[in-house]
Amino acid sequence: MFGLHLIVELYACRCPPCLLDDANALRELCLGVCERPGLTPVGQVFHQFGSAMAAAGATGVVVLAESHLAVHTWPETRAVTLDLYVCNVNQDNSLAAREACSDLIAAFLPAQVVRRELERGVPRGVGALAANPARD
Amino acid sequence: MFGLHLIVELYACRCPPCLLDDANALRELCLGVCERPGLTPVGQVFHQFGSAMAAAGATGVVVLAESHLAVHTWPETRAVTLDLYVCNVNQDNSLAAREACSDLIAAFLPAQVVRRELERGVPRGVGALAANPARD
Repeated sequence: MFGLHLIVELYACRCPPCLLDDANALRELCLGVCERPGLTPVGQVFHQFGSAMAAAGATGVVVLAESHLAVHTWPETRAVTLDLYVCNVNQDNSLAAREACSDLIAAFLPAQVVRRELERGVPRGVGALAANPARD
Repeated sequence: MFGLHLIVELYACRCPPCLLDDANALRELCLGVCERPGLTPVGQVFHQFGSAMAAAGATGVVVLAESHLAVHTWPETRAVTLDLYVCNVNQDNSLAAREACSDLIAAFLPAQVVRRELERGVPRGVGALAANPARD
C-alpha cells in the first residue's frame, strides 16, 4: 500500500469542451494517459451527468493494477479534479504516475493548476492524524 | 469542486477475510456504507486480484453523484486504503462522508488507523503546490 497520491485541481480549462462534458471523450483520454507510461487498467467506469442535449459534467475512474485514477469535471466553471494513486510495493510507479498526470493536465489546458503529492501507506506518518478506531 | 477528501490507511485489519480478498463482498460493503448516509452511487467497478483459489486482494471504486469512494486491500498484510471525496458545491456532504468513512473503518476492524482530511477545490490553497501548466 506504500505509494504516491497525486491530487490536482485545474481551473479555467481551455480544452475542447468535449473533455469536460462528454464521458466517452473523458474515458478515452484517461485510458490513454494511463497506458502510455505503462500503468495497467483493470477496470473503468464513467458517468455522464445531465443529458446529450444539456451535458452537466462527467466523472469517472480507471481502476489500475497499481491503484486508481479518478477524474471529475465541472464544465460550468471549466474546473477539473484529478486523483492518481499508485502503489509502489513491487516497483516504483511514481514516474509513470507523474507522466500520466502531466499528460492529463496538458490535455485540459488549465489557466491554473493546484497540485499536491501525498505519500500513502506510512504508519504514523508526518501529517497523519492517527485515530483510535474505537472512537472514530 | 469545492469539497472534502478523506484519506485513510488501515493496518492489521481483523475483519472477516472476505472483506480483504473478495471483490463482491467489498462491493456490497462499499455500496452499503455510501447509501446509508444518503450518498448517491451512479456507478461502480470492482476488480479481484489473483483467483478464487488464491485471492490476492481486491480493489474498487464507487462513483458518486458527490464524487467517489475508492478502496484497495492487501490481504497479505491485512492493510486497506480508503479515499472518500465529496464535492460540497450544492450542499455540504461532509457529514455523510465522515459517517460512511467511519462505517467502513469499523467494518475492517483495524488495529491502527491513519486518517487525513484534505480540503479540495480551493485555488492557491494552503499547502498546495501551484505549478505553471506550461512547465508541468
